[in-house]
Amino acid sequence: MFKELKRIWPKALALFVIGCLGLAGPVFAQDASSIADNAELIQENKVILDTVWTILAAFLVMLMQAGFALVETGFTRAKNACNILMKNLMDFSVGTIIYWAIGFGIMFGAGNALFGTSGFFLKDLGGTFDSLAWSTIPLEAKYFFQLVFAATAATIVSGAMAERTKFIGYLAFSVVVTALIYPVVGHWIWGGGWLANLGFWDFAGSTVVHSTGAWVALTGAIMLGPRIGKYNPDGSSNAIPGHNLPLAALGVFILWFGWFGFNPGSTMGAVLDIGHIAVTTNLAAAAGACAAMLVSWKLFGKPDLSMALNGALAGLVGITAPCAFVSAGSAVIIGSVAGVLVVFAVVFVDKVLRIDDPVGAVSVHGVCGAWGTISVGLFAQDIFAPGTTGNGLFFGGGAKLLLAQLAGVGAVFVWCLITGFALFYIIKKTIGLRVSGNEELRGLDIEEHGMEAYAGFQIFSTE
Amino acid sequence: MFKELKRIWPKALALFVIGCLGLAGPVFAQDASSIADNAELIQENKVILDTVWTILAAFLVMLMQAGFALVETGFTRAKNACNILMKNLMDFSVGTIIYWAIGFGIMFGAGNALFGTSGFFLKDLGGTFDSLAWSTIPLEAKYFFQLVFAATAATIVSGAMAERTKFIGYLAFSVVVTALIYPVVGHWIWGGGWLANLGFWDFAGSTVVHSTGAWVALTGAIMLGPRIGKYNPDGSSNAIPGHNLPLAALGVFILWFGWFGFNPGSTMGAVLDIGHIAVTTNLAAAAGACAAMLVSWKLFGKPDLSMALNGALAGLVGITAPCAFVSAGSAVIIGSVAGVLVVFAVVFVDKVLRIDDPVGAVSVHGVCGAWGTISVGLFAQDIFAPGTTGNGLFFGGGAKLLLAQLAGVGAVFVWCLITGFALFYIIKKTIGLRVSGNEELRGLDIEEHGMEAYAGFQIFSTE
Amino acid sequence: MFKELKRIWPKALALFVIGCLGLAGPVFAQDASSIADNAELIQENKVILDTVWTILAAFLVMLMQAGFALVETGFTRAKNACNILMKNLMDFSVGTIIYWAIGFGIMFGAGNALFGTSGFFLKDLGGTFDSLAWSTIPLEAKYFFQLVFAATAATIVSGAMAERTKFIGYLAFSVVVTALIYPVVGHWIWGGGWLANLGFWDFAGSTVVHSTGAWVALTGAIMLGPRIGKYNPDGSSNAIPGHNLPLAALGVFILWFGWFGFNPGSTMGAVLDIGHIAVTTNLAAAAGACAAMLVSWKLFGKPDLSMALNGALAGLVGITAPCAFVSAGSAVIIGSVAGVLVVFAVVFVDKVLRIDDPVGAVSVHGVCGAWGTISVGLFAQDIFAPGTTGNGLFFGGGAKLLLAQLAGVGAVFVWCLITGFALFYIIKKTIGLRVSGNEELRGLDIEEHGMEAYAGFQIFSTE
Repeated sequence: MFKELKRIWPKALALFVIGCLGLAGPVFAQDASSIADNAELIQENKVILDTVWTILAAFLVMLMQAGFALVETGFTRAKNACNILMKNLMDFSVGTIIYWAIGFGIMFGAGNALFGTSGFFLKDLGGTFDSLAWSTIPLEAKYFFQLVFAATAATIVSGAMAERTKFIGYLAFSVVVTALIYPVVGHWIWGGGWLANLGFWDFAGSTVVHSTGAWVALTGAIMLGPRIGKYNPDGSSNAIPGHNLPLAALGVFILWFGWFGFNPGSTMGAVLDIGHIAVTTNLAAAAGACAAMLVSWKLFGKPDLSMALNGALAGLVGITAPCAFVSAGSAVIIGSVAGVLVVFAVVFVDKVLRIDDPVGAVSVHGVCGAWGTISVGLFAQDIFAPGTTGNGLFFGGGAKLLLAQLAGVGAVFVWCLITGFALFYIIKKTIGLRVSGNEELRGLDIEEHGMEAYAGFQIFSTE
Repeated sequence: MFKELKRIWPKALALFVIGCLGLAGPVFAQDASSIADNAELIQENKVILDTVWTILAAFLVMLMQAGFALVETGFTRAKNACNILMKNLMDFSVGTIIYWAIGFGIMFGAGNALFGTSGFFLKDLGGTFDSLAWSTIPLEAKYFFQLVFAATAATIVSGAMAERTKFIGYLAFSVVVTALIYPVVGHWIWGGGWLANLGFWDFAGSTVVHSTGAWVALTGAIMLGPRIGKYNPDGSSNAIPGHNLPLAALGVFILWFGWFGFNPGSTMGAVLDIGHIAVTTNLAAAAGACAAMLVSWKLFGKPDLSMALNGALAGLVGITAPCAFVSAGSAVIIGSVAGVLVVFAVVFVDKVLRIDDPVGAVSVHGVCGAWGTISVGLFAQDIFAPGTTGNGLFFGGGAKLLLAQLAGVGAVFVWCLITGFALFYIIKKTIGLRVSGNEELRGLDIEEHGMEAYAGFQIFSTE
Repeated sequence: MFKELKRIWPKALALFVIGCLGLAGPVFAQDASSIADNAELIQENKVILDTVWTILAAFLVMLMQAGFALVETGFTRAKNACNILMKNLMDFSVGTIIYWAIGFGIMFGAGNALFGTSGFFLKDLGGTFDSLAWSTIPLEAKYFFQLVFAATAATIVSGAMAERTKFIGYLAFSVVVTALIYPVVGHWIWGGGWLANLGFWDFAGSTVVHSTGAWVALTGAIMLGPRIGKYNPDGSSNAIPGHNLPLAALGVFILWFGWFGFNPGSTMGAVLDIGHIAVTTNLAAAAGACAAMLVSWKLFGKPDLSMALNGALAGLVGITAPCAFVSAGSAVIIGSVAGVLVVFAVVFVDKVLRIDDPVGAVSVHGVCGAWGTISVGLFAQDIFAPGTTGNGLFFGGGAKLLLAQLAGVGAVFVWCLITGFALFYIIKKTIGLRVSGNEELRGLDIEEHGMEAYAGFQIFSTE
């Protein structure tokens, strides 16, 4: 076109001016309209890209259900394997329905500073889900991403309550956690509730998901009491080793993999930060595994696989809150501390508190969840969305952020303990929480489900 | 530029007019050209995004091969584990080659209303693959996405024929299914064939993939007869429990995960609907698991893990055809019905028909595939690509769609039964279909492959 | 706007010219600015899309760690399962930290033709990482993608050294491989080093990752010597079968899945070629599995699952270098040859060389890695980024490319043998490389880690 116009240069000024009328007008119009069309298409494509990224991240998080199922199955005895698998399957299945019907509305629906009161069954009356308006993706994609988080919180509990819980009691618990206990915490922090207003930050859920699950698990483990044979009359503790470490290790690898949906995906949109978040997540997990291995080596004389695996998870749980707000170097420190913490926490819960948590869920998700949340107050740098977190204590931001983080950790701890104890008390007094001693000895697979995990293959005594 | 132009305002009209000649021409030209460039880049990026989405979805579907391998291995006996794994590995390997050479051309190549007659080895003579022109992605990406579907259909069969089929006979079957039986059905429905023209809709393959695989599996199971020890002389049936439920459960989680490639990926392009499709898919799976668990609890007295797992798969199979066309609420109903159906179907096939289907493939993929396809005729709403499906019976669309769906279900059933029986008859009369009784008793691992699945670890008698 | 302008046509020329001054100026300015804005947004979105694709591909590659862990665990004995899992976990954990601190700088940092001398801890002083400037994604995303490759190289080694290596010796080895041996090879080929300048091409790492890992593994297996009971006094070899083939098969499926991140992801950006690369990758894997099965059938009388699984891996390793440069048909040939090669290589290493490589790592990753790299010189077509590889010998390109490929294969072989022997010699003379005979007999799980893989479930004698 450029060349054509040059060629007609000699054809005089008048013609051009007239041409301007006939040509430039439409051209202006077409150009402006085409530019606007382009801008709209660019925006549309970006929203689709946001959706593709978030939904793929959600798929990865969903696979974490398999990871939890394997870790919990592997770390417990063969005679309870079907029961653990069933609980994990049902956590996600029941959770999917309940969180769609109720939980998502409580968590993100418009309401008050404590809980949402609208948006059940994803019903959007306009403005119902303003708390999630910062993400451009369709409402259903938001629900789906949040659902897989809710299911994670519920699943954490099954590990701590393994090998002695009545299945129907567990089902009842699962409904209440997904409908109420978890969504209320979520509303406080991610749904525009009072902790969000306080300046509390939890990027991907060290507290929202992991601590919530773990503190409820703690009440469950306490209300149930220890497994038969776990503690001796003199108060000393026996190790009850898991029956399938390869499955447990596979579970940890799958969880690690799924965490790349969990943390980077919490952007709920396609942004360049996902690279940084993947790196902090991975460094913390690696540092946690190394630290836990070294500590276990020092403490027990040999490098312990279970501890190294739990160390990786500890690092992942710890970095979940700060992953977007901290540097790679800080991530290594946060993960290392989590890896050390988890070993001591497991020993402390087992030997000192004498609470029987078969897979170490309270230590991994509770203690390290709290640590990760607090670490935001220490290591945060105002890098993700400048003007949000501000800097933490170690980066010149003073104690403001740290205090907000501590307040959040404490508030969620109190909420989960109160509601957890109340819930399990009611279940205990009504449908029952624990199987009989005889059922426990024979195993929940036969007694509760009428089947064996390894039929024609499994050989073990009734211990 | 705006400010610069303002500053030269006083420099007179004449200069401007001349300037228009020298400047506006090129500017017009450059602008229009830049706008067109932008539009082209936007389009290019969208095509790349479509490809990224579809290829990632295909990867997830490919992983379903692992899911099927685990489900089938876990639900059968240890002595046949290597054989099942080998069959699954070879389904995908042989299928990859055959579907590239032949199957894809039969399915999507230009031809007639019954099958394609061109496009072998992906040879595109221009217009060869018009039936897939609606998707913008490169031909090879289309082939890859369709391949993982074809392999799924083949793999479904191995479960129903487990623990007694001669390996070489199975290989022969696998070639024919991937080259012919499956692609012909695919051509009818997705390749522009007669069922597509009839107004039959199957979004992601309840019928194309799942029913096709299952009805062929049904003929295989019938032609083989039951495993030794499955039925008593009085006609009553013995349960032959699987040897590794944790693997089976892991398989179901992996299948569930892979289904998020299967259903949302069937858009074969990046669109916002993927969020909706993920949600309907997930709700149906969850509802299926819950429903099957409850029904098994009622029927057998205890909540059965195998049934709950199959219920999840049943929900997934059921929602596969309607996933894009129905609401979230309808998905819950469709999945629940599938979960109920699968329990009764398993019992019916086992006790009434006395067909030995070790993993319940006919019930899960056949019965629930048919149900899902029919449910389109009941629950469809014209939401995905308005003007395509129209509404189903329950949404005011009348019986038109329902009748087309029923026709498709019936036609595919007949096609699979005829070709399946013919194929297995020929195999039986030539290379042989079933191993000897002695081989079956000792296990196919030792007899057919000269190895054990759990060497130095496996302990089981010859039952 | 078009219509509006038409309506004002009669309002005279003068007004228009004046209007041009007041309107056209700003409009020109706004248009040009909007067009530039659009162009910038398009570019931004493309970079985000590049990042999303690459980071997701990296996640898939990360999951390969689980695949390797399962393959190695499944193909070895139950008494060493925890040890193998621990080594795999630590490979990735230690590797993550070391490659961040040191390895990535050695590999991609500015330096000389032999190794990088800058960029430690991802420190970019401007131009530090020019060797990766061809990819648009953020530096941390590049590191993450390259990290999962580095970890793969390290993990390959653990299989060949399984069941007899001292854990602490293995840890020391893992640090050096990730910090030095692997990154130097990487620098030569991908970091702008001397092999890159020579015209050597390895798209996704047949040599960089797989051969490097395998040749180091070879030195390790030689320095360790065979497992107790592997070779008889007369020099004949005993098979020591793996204890869990289902886990090994699952591992192969996961590796196959992860390879779709490995090969197509090596574009480090979203391009349409990912479809083609997925297809060549998949065809080669399938052909490898088929070929290895057929050869094992011919050689051993029965189709062997272990060989078919290794055949799939062989095909994948073989296609890794040429995946982007060859046609689908060539991929089938390359994969088939790899599948044949791997069977003979396993037999050759075991019976002729009498080197005890429990999982066949040297054959799969070394021999087939070399074959794949050489195949580029034979089958390459100048299709991926025209003007780069040129054509190989079979496509009229002459021997130039082939000679460069042979030079690279040889150079990496020599480098790995020298550094591998030196490293293992130092470890042997200092902290020790092999456990005692007694420890080996009882198993490394109890002796090195104080635990069992299948507690209360495992029953096997001390063989």
